[in-house]
Amino acid sequence: MTLSNHTSFLSEAVEALSDPQSCQGLLHRHRDGDPLPSAKALRRAVELTRNLVFPGYFGIPNVNSRTLKYHTGVMVEELYGVMAEQILAAFCFEDTGEDIGILRLRATDCAAMFITRLPRLRQVLATDVEAAYNGDPAAKSHGEVISCYPAIRAILNYRMAHALLTEGVPFLPRIITEMAHSETGIDIHPGARIGTHFTIDHGTGVVIGETCVIGNHVKLYQGVTLGAKSFPLDADGNPVKGIPRHPILEDDVIVYSNATILGRITIGRGATVGGNIWVTEDVPAGARIVQTKAKK
Amino acid sequence: MTLSNHTSFLSEAVEALSDPQSCQGLLHRHRDGDPLPSAKALRRAVELTRNLVFPGYFGIPNVNSRTLKYHTGVMVEELYGVMAEQILAAFCFEDTGEDIGILRLRATDCAAMFITRLPRLRQVLATDVEAAYNGDPAAKSHGEVISCYPAIRAILNYRMAHALLTEGVPFLPRIITEMAHSETGIDIHPGARIGTHFTIDHGTGVVIGETCVIGNHVKLYQGVTLGAKSFPLDADGNPVKGIPRHPILEDDVIVYSNATILGRITIGRGATVGGNIWVTEDVPAGARIVQTKAKK
Amino acid sequence: MTLSNHTSFLSEAVEALSDPQSCQGLLHRHRDGDPLPSAKALRRAVELTRNLVFPGYFGIPNVNSRTLKYHTGVMVEELYGVMAEQILAAFCFEDTGEDIGILRLRATDCAAMFITRLPRLRQVLATDVEAAYNGDPAAKSHGEVISCYPAIRAILNYRMAHALLTEGVPFLPRIITEMAHSETGIDIHPGARIGTHFTIDHGTGVVIGETCVIGNHVKLYQGVTLGAKSFPLDADGNPVKGIPRHPILEDDVIVYSNATILGRITIGRGATVGGNIWVTEDVPAGARIVQTKAKK
Amino acid sequence: MTLSNHTSFLSEAVEALSDPQSCQGLLHRHRDGDPLPSAKALRRAVELTRNLVFPGYFGIPNVNSRTLKYHTGVMVEELYGVMAEQILAAFCFEDTGEDIGILRLRATDCAAMFITRLPRLRQVLATDVEAAYNGDPAAKSHGEVISCYPAIRAILNYRMAHALLTEGVPFLPRIITEMAHSETGIDIHPGARIGTHFTIDHGTGVVIGETCVIGNHVKLYQGVTLGAKSFPLDADGNPVKGIPRHPILEDDVIVYSNATILGRITIGRGATVGGNIWVTEDVPAGARIVQTKAKK
Amino acid sequence: MTLSNHTSFLSEAVEALSDPQSCQGLLHRHRDGDPLPSAKALRRAVELTRNLVFPGYFGIPNVNSRTLKYHTGVMVEELYGVMAEQILAAFCFEDTGEDIGILRLRATDCAAMFITRLPRLRQVLATDVEAAYNGDPAAKSHGEVISCYPAIRAILNYRMAHALLTEGVPFLPRIITEMAHSETGIDIHPGARIGTHFTIDHGTGVVIGETCVIGNHVKLYQGVTLGAKSFPLDADGNPVKGIPRHPILEDDVIVYSNATILGRITIGRGATVGGNIWVTEDVPAGARIVQTKAKK
Amino acid sequence: MTLSNHTSFLSEAVEALSDPQSCQGLLHRHRDGDPLPSAKALRRAVELTRNLVFPGYFGIPNVNSRTLKYHTGVMVEELYGVMAEQILAAFCFEDTGEDIGILRLRATDCAAMFITRLPRLRQVLATDVEAAYNGDPAAKSHGEVISCYPAIRAILNYRMAHALLTEGVPFLPRIITEMAHSETGIDIHPGARIGTHFTIDHGTGVVIGETCVIGNHVKLYQGVTLGAKSFPLDADGNPVKGIPRHPILEDDVIVYSNATILGRITIGRGATVGGNIWVTEDVPAGARIVQTKAKK
Repeated sequence: MTLSNHTSFLSEAVEALSDPQSCQGLLHRHRDGDPLPSAKALRRAVELTRNLVFPGYFGIPNVNSRTLKYHTGVMVEELYGVMAEQILAAFCFEDTGEDIGILRLRATDCAAMFITRLPRLRQVLATDVEAAYNGDPAAKSHGEVISCYPAIRAILNYRMAHALLTEGVPFLPRIITEMAHSETGIDIHPGARIGTHFTIDHGTGVVIGETCVIGNHVKLYQGVTLGAKSFPLDADGNPVKGIPRHPILEDDVIVYSNATILGRITIGRGATVGGNIWVTEDVPAGARIVQTKAKK
Repeated sequence: MTLSNHTSFLSEAVEALSDPQSCQGLLHRHRDGDPLPSAKALRRAVELTRNLVFPGYFGIPNVNSRTLKYHTGVMVEELYGVMAEQILAAFCFEDTGEDIGILRLRATDCAAMFITRLPRLRQVLATDVEAAYNGDPAAKSHGEVISCYPAIRAILNYRMAHALLTEGVPFLPRIITEMAHSETGIDIHPGARIGTHFTIDHGTGVVIGETCVIGNHVKLYQGVTLGAKSFPLDADGNPVKGIPRHPILEDDVIVYSNATILGRITIGRGATVGGNIWVTEDVPAGARIVQTKAKK
Repeated sequence: MTLSNHTSFLSEAVEALSDPQSCQGLLHRHRDGDPLPSAKALRRAVELTRNLVFPGYFGIPNVNSRTLKYHTGVMVEELYGVMAEQILAAFCFEDTGEDIGILRLRATDCAAMFITRLPRLRQVLATDVEAAYNGDPAAKSHGEVISCYPAIRAILNYRMAHALLTEGVPFLPRIITEMAHSETGIDIHPGARIGTHFTIDHGTGVVIGETCVIGNHVKLYQGVTLGAKSFPLDADGNPVKGIPRHPILEDDVIVYSNATILGRITIGRGATVGGNIWVTEDVPAGARIVQTKAKK
Repeated sequence: MTLSNHTSFLSEAVEALSDPQSCQGLLHRHRDGDPLPSAKALRRAVELTRNLVFPGYFGIPNVNSRTLKYHTGVMVEELYGVMAEQILAAFCFEDTGEDIGILRLRATDCAAMFITRLPRLRQVLATDVEAAYNGDPAAKSHGEVISCYPAIRAILNYRMAHALLTEGVPFLPRIITEMAHSETGIDIHPGARIGTHFTIDHGTGVVIGETCVIGNHVKLYQGVTLGAKSFPLDADGNPVKGIPRHPILEDDVIVYSNATILGRITIGRGATVGGNIWVTEDVPAGARIVQTKAKK
Repeated sequence: MTLSNHTSFLSEAVEALSDPQSCQGLLHRHRDGDPLPSAKALRRAVELTRNLVFPGYFGIPNVNSRTLKYHTGVMVEELYGVMAEQILAAFCFEDTGEDIGILRLRATDCAAMFITRLPRLRQVLATDVEAAYNGDPAAKSHGEVISCYPAIRAILNYRMAHALLTEGVPFLPRIITEMAHSETGIDIHPGARIGTHFTIDHGTGVVIGETCVIGNHVKLYQGVTLGAKSFPLDADGNPVKGIPRHPILEDDVIVYSNATILGRITIGRGATVGGNIWVTEDVPAGARIVQTKAKK
Repeated sequence: MTLSNHTSFLSEAVEALSDPQSCQGLLHRHRDGDPLPSAKALRRAVELTRNLVFPGYFGIPNVNSRTLKYHTGVMVEELYGVMAEQILAAFCFEDTGEDIGILRLRATDCAAMFITRLPRLRQVLATDVEAAYNGDPAAKSHGEVISCYPAIRAILNYRMAHALLTEGVPFLPRIITEMAHSETGIDIHPGARIGTHFTIDHGTGVVIGETCVIGNHVKLYQGVTLGAKSFPLDADGNPVKGIPRHPILEDDVIVYSNATILGRITIGRGATVGGNIWVTEDVPAGARIVQTKAKK
């Protein structure tokens, strides 16, 4: 290929790639002036939420009883602004055709509700930190758990995302949990419902599906899947959305590493599921199931 | 240790670490003036490719039918430049001793070929998006799939890398798939051959080996391994490189989470492999294999 | 919610979140003027260590026999400064109440010891590179292994962290291994003891617990867990910390993907553990155990 | 001062500085959600304008006849967005109490008008480049003039600012000319009216006042002041704003370095004003005035 | 010069430049671990001071009566920390050999004193803003003066620097005024003493020497020099430092552009000095001096 | 203007601005793949040169006799690379049509020569520092002069630029001196010839023209112009380039603030030129000229 050919092939690629025909369904059309969901802004929102929930741990110097309120005031203000903007962007992304003025008011309300939930968010996350510390002999202090444990990061993002989903915010919840998925390998769908004192040891490879229901004091290990077994198709052969199809884990359940639990089954209160097994039927309360013995 | 000792121990460490003897095989010797493969530049190349394949999704405001061509033109130009430079760097990294002028021409040709493949790349990725959307009841829209699903990111990087490998570009393909591996936990070797409508649910922990052959409409779940069972050693006890040693998955195969499929075996058309199992023998078309029952 | 309400709800959230009562145990109180552990600084420390151990690979142009000593000298100097500062921050984070002057001296000593260990660190990592290259038919060159393989990154961070732990440095070792965990999905506790020629293929989902002991020439695949089976509680129902509770792997052991090995058991010299199995009892030297056959 | 005192003095400073009384007239009250004028955004607007007027000079690679339209398209789009946002911010800064929806429409219109003026802006600046090149024996090429000469930078900012002022945009014009003032030491008030083929040699210290009128083919040297001599006060002793009070320079005037021309006087066509003098009376067309001789 | 020569010439340059002999007096020897004066940190200190003095103007959104205290609290805290560190660095830079512990205490005290002066600093700067607004018919609002006028920036830096000099802080005051000099072309030595309601119109090229004394309500125009005429040498031929050698300007003096006033002379109350003249003798109160007429 | 009009006006602006006709002489056509002169890279080159000439002053911690060579080695290497690239870019910018391979060799040679001049550059700048310190009673130390004085910054850039010009490097010298012009208000043309022990007090507004010749021990004050009086035009009415047209200042000359010296005249050895005057005729050695007295 000679240099003069280069010119033409580049022009051809530009033509082909900007042919609206070839973009069918892949081009996101954006209304001029609307804000766009921004991964950078959402990362900042997660960072602010972490700083507000666990003050003094993540990069702000000099937080003490004298300065706590100043920092809290500034961060609440910023978080409120970022959330209002990003929620508006999410409404616009859906492209329902509604008036932007109305969407803006709704976004502001959702952001306000999110802010008012922060104190409760902190209370629940405190139980998760407690559970992680108590459940791991390697844990040296609460501070180490808050600073280092990927489970805390993933659960915080999940709890943020679940709160937004509850307010009817589209799109953002999934981005927020996928951020934690990328960082930690823990994939919790924002639609799942999870109780207090929840912990995940090591965590990589954990999957918690959209319609899971998890009680209090539940502990998972790395590689655990709480998934769907199969799903009904509608008349057009498309999956029917929104049907309960993931497991229910009652209080005090433990699931060991790489276990796969599928379908709308119930793992009863206090049951233990051993590692590397495949569970598709109910497990009674207090039961303990394990893999059949390996052969040598 | 007193402060005066510090001085001498630092000098000693510098001497020890810059002793060419101690670097044996670990020091990469770089020819003055040659470009270096740059993770930052390759990340930019991946970002540009994503933006070109899925216009309007990742951070560029105001892409609409009027402005699509402008953005496409600017990005194609930049991508072409970055790829030409990085491919040249990869040739230099191999250090074959060839003349840099000749390498530069070859690099330019490879970059040009890569650009001309972009429209086809978009077509194939559109089938992957379709498959992910249809296969997941939790998926709300094509937009959500494109924006959030780690599988799309990993498959895009793989398809870029495979295209480069096909052009004979060394070194870069592996870096590009490892970038996706780090982001998503999905490890697809650039040498694998994968058909259309490919999807991976959740994805963390998936491994797809170098000589895998995967048909159309195949779906994997998280934690699936398509690996090698063992490999022959040559006379010197080193593994023989390049021998087909990974599985063949025919069209319409589904493999559930944490299944391990090893060796050059064939999973027949339409077969289903259950989760958490270890498969080292052929599975006939249409078959369905699952783990033996757990014991309670 | 009207705009005027917004004002008050924000103030209320600030009050609630800065109420010291509600921070109980979650607020990290920081002594004015003390340095803070910084993820950014530690990332720089890891980057410098990688550059010193594998000169010429990561972003520094023009490293050749003439310039190696200059670059080494500058990087050793910077690494020493960063480590001294971060180790001091870690001591302060523990908040033992000791005088900062004494802590500073101790931190400087630990940083100095870390620097003197670098040449040995390089020697051991060279054996890990060798093992990765020999064990993977897909590996094209030592350069590719050093540049791309997540196992090398995770093992380097582990070896850094273990060295710091050995010097009595708190807190930082865990942060450093969690950085690699997030990047690679490989979770090696800094307390584990690991021999030479260690390699992990693909790696995502690997967990190596705090009291593991791993010999030389051991190879793991992705998804392997070397974990604890259960742990004794003390009189207060809290887990007893520090008891040996993870497996011992003797020299030349291979563990295939997604195997789970739990408890203080011994996998004997040269044994092979098949994939997707759950092992809670000793495996004799030279033995080979695999999953019971799947049913179709 | 002991450490315990520090705490209280900091709190006291915070109280004093956040006392609304003490901020009287110095606190800019900002309506929640309104955009703020941003120096960074305006710097970007200036950069885009420079790149559009002089394509290929400032940091964009690969501008050639094939790619010029792509780059122009992308930059026009971005410039339009930035200007619309910043003009809105300027309206809000004035705080006239008008409805933000109406201000937004007006801002969009002003930004649109600004974009439509760009081709004309380029034509006029081309005459300024011509004048600078012809007037300086040290100028090596048009390219050097465009890239290096501070006068071109200052005049471009002035012409941008003047266009915005003409559209009724408040606040921004002055910020834009002050940016050039800081960079070049040339202070041209956006209200001045300046013809084509205008040039300023060296430039530092030049001041051109708000009501100046400058013809075509005028040349100034460094340190020249075109200022006001005095200004009438109103009944309250405040200066009356907006009265013509700066000089008129007709076509083809040259003013040498450090000359000071004050008041609403006219320097006639083709006149030459020598350096370091103080002129407060009309100078007839074609005249040449210089300093009285120095004494030795 | 061939490529092989390159190698040796580079080594020779390194040897020559790192020869301690050749560095005589040019190498700044830095005690290990001491902080270094940092232009970046000082720029931050100036920015914080501007934000504290003029809240809401420079880049912080949402400052209103509700949030003013939060922002003030956070910024005072940060400014205190930055100043303490930089003052310590300045003490170390002087290299007096004093114990770092003692220097640290002294630096902390100076920083504390600086913070306590901030409310007074605001009061004085408010008078400068007033003077600039009243003295310029082109000024549209106090907001425009605060945001755009270089004089305000230069005077703020001077007043900060003078406060630090008064506390006995070495080195930093000059760096801070030189920052404003570079930005605005206004060079005010930190040692000068300047009253309230001070303003400089346009400003570029103004020089105010170390021992100047300026009263209240003084106004300067661009290019004015308040300099030294000559200075006595000591027995070794070096200039004697610290002798009063710059002018005294009493209250209500106006000096027009490019005037040069040299030596320890007094410009009496209410006097006016015309532009472009050279003044080396006292000017009586109320007098008005101008340049002799230019000749045509 | 309605929104739909916006669309068309934007497209029209893009068409008008990308019309090659309208770019006549303003579009810089860039050969694909050629490097571009980069202000950022040149700023780095200036920074490296300053750090090499005055080690330990500008932002590198821990320069002491032990580490000086490491830092010097790394910086010389980087400077050599940056200069070679930028000089090549400058050759390409001229667009002489020469083969890039030949230009590359020539650029490398120029960069090498520049490096070999660094030790001499340091020697001369040491005399400038000495002169600034001795000539200013306000100077506290050599360190303050090196760190803060704008004259040192401007003279260093000039001496760099002059060295490059001497090597035949186009374009870059002027960019480098204009960088200092923007920072300091001191405009020294790279073509001027300036002896040792040169200093400029305060500096803003100083202009030194292309063909100036300045001896040793010369001192200028702010606002001084050493300019051209007029210049002959060629047959086409264009200025004849390259004719000596600026003043000669012999050794030991002092020029006070705002003096303007024009034309190819000679200011004799030891002469003193007073401030605010306009000099267009020779001044004999040892003479002292001042402004005629101002009238009151």
